[in-house]
Parts: sequence; C-alpha cells; structure tokens
Amino acid sequence: MANISQEALAPYLTEVEEALQSALAEFDEPGCLYDPVHYLFEGGGKRIRPVLTLLACECVGGNRAVALPAAVAVELLHNFTLVHDDIMDSSAKRRGRETVHVKWDTNTAILSGDVMMGMAMRLLLRSAHHAPRPLDVVDSFSTGLIDVCDGQALDMDFMQRADVTTDEYFTMIERKTARLLEMSVAIGGNVGGTTNGRVEALRMFAREIGIAFQMQDDILDLFGSEQFGKQPGGDIVEGKRTWLVIECARRVRKNSAATEEHREMIYSFFAKNGLPRETVPAVIDMMEHYGVIADAKAVVEQRTSRAHAHLNSLPETEARELMGLMAKLLMNRKS
Amino acid sequence: MANISQEALAPYLTEVEEALQSALAEFDEPGCLYDPVHYLFEGGGKRIRPVLTLLACECVGGNRAVALPAAVAVELLHNFTLVHDDIMDSSAKRRGRETVHVKWDTNTAILSGDVMMGMAMRLLLRSAHHAPRPLDVVDSFSTGLIDVCDGQALDMDFMQRADVTTDEYFTMIERKTARLLEMSVAIGGNVGGTTNGRVEALRMFAREIGIAFQMQDDILDLFGSEQFGKQPGGDIVEGKRTWLVIECARRVRKNSAATEEHREMIYSFFAKNGLPRETVPAVIDMMEHYGVIADAKAVVEQRTSRAHAHLNSLPETEARELMGLMAKLLMNRKS
Repeated sequence: MANISQEALAPYLTEVEEALQSALAEFDEPGCLYDPVHYLFEGGGKRIRPVLTLLACECVGGNRAVALPAAVAVELLHNFTLVHDDIMDSSAKRRGRETVHVKWDTNTAILSGDVMMGMAMRLLLRSAHHAPRPLDVVDSFSTGLIDVCDGQALDMDFMQRADVTTDEYFTMIERKTARLLEMSVAIGGNVGGTTNGRVEALRMFAREIGIAFQMQDDILDLFGSEQFGKQPGGDIVEGKRTWLVIECARRVRKNSAATEEHREMIYSFFAKNGLPRETVPAVIDMMEHYGVIADAKAVVEQRTSRAHAHLNSLPETEARELMGLMAKLLMNRKS
Repeated sequence: MANISQEALAPYLTEVEEALQSALAEFDEPGCLYDPVHYLFEGGGKRIRPVLTLLACECVGGNRAVALPAAVAVELLHNFTLVHDDIMDSSAKRRGRETVHVKWDTNTAILSGDVMMGMAMRLLLRSAHHAPRPLDVVDSFSTGLIDVCDGQALDMDFMQRADVTTDEYFTMIERKTARLLEMSVAIGGNVGGTTNGRVEALRMFAREIGIAFQMQDDILDLFGSEQFGKQPGGDIVEGKRTWLVIECARRVRKNSAATEEHREMIYSFFAKNGLPRETVPAVIDMMEHYGVIADAKAVVEQRTSRAHAHLNSLPETEARELMGLMAKLLMNRKS
C-alpha cells in the first residue's frame, strides 16, 4: 500500500461532486439568493475537506456513504467563509473568477453566505442521524464555525499591531486554517461510529497538517509562483503577520548587532502595514540572514511528521494510506 | 386565569436576561469580534422569541429550565439577522443606538453576526440533549435560518419589481417575520417533550401571529408614531412592497373608473421605489378610498383569531394563558 496512487482518490472526488450537485439542486428559489451559491461551486475547488471527512469515516471502519451529506456540509461551511472573507479582504478574484460581492454586490454576498450556513446544517443532520453521538457532530460543526470566526478576527486584529508573537500566530492559524480540517475529520470519524479516542487522533492529525500547510503556504508566498501568476512576497507587500515576519522581527529587535537597514525594514513593515514590492528581495535576504526561512521549514517538517505519527496510531487500512496521501498532496502543491 | 397579568411574565424575562448574560460571558476574546455582540445586547430588546420558547416548553408540560439555553439561542439567531439586515438596509440606528456596522465597520458587523450563529448553535445543543428528538431541534433551527434568509432575499427582490402579488407578500413575511417565531415555539415544544401534533399547533399559532403582527406593523407605519418619533408613511417613502400598497395597486389597475391621479401615484411608487413624503396623506386617502386599510385590518383580525384557535387546541394551563397574553401584547403595541 506504500505506493498507493493518487488515482485511488478519484472516486471520492466524484462522489463529493455528485452529492454537492444534488444538494445544491434542492435550493434554487429565490434566484437572487441561490444563484451566487451555484456560481461559487461552479468555480470548482479542491474539495480537500469533504474528502477528508469521507476518509476519516473509513479510517475508523465506517461506511463512507453515511458521511457524504456531512462532507458536503463541511464544504459548504468552508465556502461560506470564503464568500464572507472575500468581502472583508476586498478580494476581486477567487478561483480565477469574479468574487460574489464583485459579480453581484456586498448585500448579496452577505446573505448568500448566511444561507449556506443553514444549508450546511440541514445536510449535516442527514449524516448525524447515523452517528453514535449525533449531537457531537453538530457540536463539532458549531465549534468549527466559532473558531474560524475567531481566527479571522485575530488575523484582522493583527494588522493593527506590531507586537504579535509567534504563539499568537499559532493560535490564529490553528483557528482560521486548521480548525476546519480538524472539524472535517472529527465529523467523519464520529459518523463512522468510532470511539472518542480515535476521533482525537484524527483531530490531532488534521490540526498538525493544517498548521504545517499554512506555514508552508507562507513560505511559498515569499517566492511567488510563475505557474499561478503570483508575484513573490505578496504577504510582505500586504503587511500580513506571518510566522516568518514575526520571528524575523523578534530576532532583529533583540540582536544588538542588527543593521540599521534591517531595523528600518522591520519598523516600516509594521508601521506602514507592508513594504513596497521592490523591497521584497531585501526582506528575503534579511530573513535568510537570520535563519528564519530554514527554521520555518523545520517547523513545517516537525508538524508534518507529528501529523503522520497521529495518523499512524490508527489501524492500518487503505483509507489511512489515502489520508496520508492527501496530507502529502496538500504539502507538495506548488501554488 | 382570564385576568392573568403582564406581571406574570416578569420572571420569564428575568431568566432570559440572566441566561443571556451568562452565555455572553463565555465569549469575550478577541474583543474585536465579541465587543460588538455584547454592545448589541446591552441595547436591550423585547426578548419576545426566547419568552415564547420558554412558554411553549411549559405549554406542553415541560420544565422551562431545560429550554433556557435554546431560548437564548433563538434570541442570538434573531439578533444575528438584525446585524446583517442593518448592513443591507444601511440602517444607522437600532434600539436608539448606532448599529454595529456604523459604530465599528461593515467587516466587523459581518463577522460578529457570523459568530453569533455559532454561539447560538452551541447553546441550542445544551437544550437539545433534553429533547425526545434532539436532531429535530437542530433541524428547526436550520430551517429557521434558511427561511429567514429566503425571506430577506425576497424582500430585497421585491424592490426591483412592480408586479408583486399579495400571495408573494405572504410568502415573504411568512419566511422573514413569522418563521423565527414559529421556530421559537417549535424548539420550546420539542425540548418540552411533546408530540409532533402539539408542536404543529404551537407552530401554527406562531405563524398566524407572525403574519398578523407584520401586517399590523405595516398599517401602524402608515400613521407613524409620535411616541417613537416615527413619521407617517415611512414604508411609502421607502417604496416597501407591503400588502397595503400591493392590494391598492391591484384595485386601481383593474378599476376602469380609477382616477388619473391614483394611477399616477401607483405608477410612480413602483417606478421610483417610493413617493415623496408630502404625498403620504394622498396615498392614505387613496388606500381608504379603495377600502384597503379596512381590509388589511380584517386580515389582521382573521389571522389573530386563527392564532388563538390553534393555541386553544392545547391543554388549558397558565403557560397557555401567558402565551395568549404575549400575542395580545405583540398586537397592541403602539410602536
């Protein structure tokens, strides 16, 4: 099973897509509310979270068919966060197409996002009926929703501050990025009928992968991506408080031998909420000088290996192999 | 029990307020997310929906203490809709204070609204555990959320149209106004341990009262309120598609003897989405001329009496009397 191929994931993706389409077909009127929801899903997406839900269900010996509505619910919740985040971040594009608030307007995007939450809850209940602890399924979902809002609020709040710590950064990404992955597997495991102990192992796997993924994403952002048309250092230009910049600032500030140029870059980054695009190479040089990038990569490695250790505490099954493969695909993407 | 006094409702209001405060105390960090939620509830509110939840629980013989977390959940859901509706309607004031999106900003209002939904779900589960059909409690909640979004979308959509029918108006207010009242009693009845039949009677009571209440609200709006500083005919000025204006338009259009002035007022109302404030008395005269106001009052009477008939199908208890009193207070308010 060590050489399990990515093709083995195809049936999962097909099932998710079909279930998603059939769920969306239940909601069409009024069009001013549901057209944006249909539009959003036509734009595609990697469907990572719903596939994790199905795999988590199988990892604990469950029949993934019963987890399918919950998998769609998880994808709806994720997409709800995208619609509202795109308003808050004034993002014009998503998956290469206009965002909902640009194609329609802000009011439509607020309301269509809101209704997706209700749609998600309704679908979730169809799986929850099969779970040994039905209300725990709903509880995981509500915690996911609360924490993803907390994480987004912290992220926005960080933009007002120059003294964010790496601990605070981890709290933020744990809630904003990792919690929905955690929720996806917790719900899958619960619907699959497992014990709380196994749900906890699945959760820890997803949490560590989520943190590793976000840090990796921050590192990749430094260097940009020709393939996806992303210029290097977007986060530096936008002033985002990533682990890299927080840790670099800490090292510069405490180092009495730090150059004036480095001190000035750090000061300006926080004072002006970002630096001009032409300074990106100098910022990367500074990060390399202080060993920040290498250390960030080490954290990614450490978190990834912790994730796999949690996964390996589960019984050896094909689903477990596929879950490991999903983690690798997530970490190896180049975008 | 016929002379039951309003004072008998005081303990319900106190319990709701205390439970609400203790629920809110669980959520304080990050302040940029939860401060607006605390602010919103400091502004007060009539707490109609949570009291209905407690009374519905007692009406079917349940102990209202188990319904208290659900009652708070219902109030959170209601207030979530207010925060997001205020953004969509560009309302500057709510309960005499600045709205959240004015005091903070739109992003904060979107996110604080979103998290209230998660908080509501978490609280709901504390009551759902006691219900004979726990997932039905969550199902009522998700249907409430979906339908209130549907209703708001229809209301916004009507503003683009001159051909809205009274049937469509009833569909809209049933979802936008009545459904949350219906949900409040359905959840209370379910947590109280009743049969589906009694939940249905409670639902029908709340639906009819909700419709009567909204139509009454539309009629009161015509004449304004000195006490609450509301000028007459606000809905006419804003172009709102109320039953009054929809039905008046229908009668004018089909009446070959209708004056040119009346035809012109109806045409302009829809074409310009509202009429100047100085035309309000003429519009009221026109509505009176066509018997629209009297007929609207008759609909209010009919819906109110249907509501009480549904309520009276339940066993005679003090809670039932108080529920009837709540309906009367709702219908007799002067704002």
